[in-house]
Amino acid sequence: MSDFPAHLPEPPYYAVIFPSQRPDGAPDDGYEAMAARMSALAAEQDGYLGQESVRDARGHGITVSYWRDEAAIRAWKANAEHVEARRRGRSEWYLDWAIRVCRVERAYATEPRPDADRGAI
Amino acid sequence: MSDFPAHLPEPPYYAVIFPSQRPDGAPDDGYEAMAARMSALAAEQDGYLGQESVRDARGHGITVSYWRDEAAIRAWKANAEHVEARRRGRSEWYLDWAIRVCRVERAYATEPRPDADRGAI
Repeated sequence: MSDFPAHLPEPPYYAVIFPSQRPDGAPDDGYEAMAARMSALAAEQDGYLGQESVRDARGHGITVSYWRDEAAIRAWKANAEHVEARRRGRSEWYLDWAIRVCRVERAYATEPRPDADRGAI
Repeated sequence: MSDFPAHLPEPPYYAVIFPSQRPDGAPDDGYEAMAARMSALAAEQDGYLGQESVRDARGHGITVSYWRDEAAIRAWKANAEHVEARRRGRSEWYLDWAIRVCRVERAYATEPRPDADRGAI
């Protein structure tokens, strides 16, 4: 079951774009476990709508998380476990990163195809 | 010289989030050449600010392009070569995709570090 691209409600909603650069050929220093935990924890938050995350062999990654409103983004930012993960990310895991908070104004997507695995929709 | 994450002006500006799913293990059917051409062509457009693009081994990709305003996004959408690339993308290259147009309200980034390759800044 694939949810990529994420299935989202009609706009408006909010997105947090998070590009990050991991060291090329970095050992697994706890990063993968943290990333999986943050993904699962985000999905439990009130106002969470979905996420998409990709990292390539160069260590370039983009994660986009989607939220009902800015209050939901602020609450997630204040989550204590997430605060600690960001602190370790800055000091240990990422060479470089950016965070961009935006309001999604409009969206288009592929029409569902009968041959595609779209789950129970 | 790395420009990942992209170096961008202060918000507000606009972002186009484009997640796409390529077939797993797809042959190179002209897709790579088209993607490189579209990236270069976008960078020539008035109002273009930057882009970030990542694709992983599963065929999941996220490209985010950044623009001065919505008029610049509309002009790029109407570019004839880009129209043709989107048509081929829908019919040949992508299993699934979405486009999300958003207004970036605020942004944060890593402080430049003396040991990082940030180019001539």
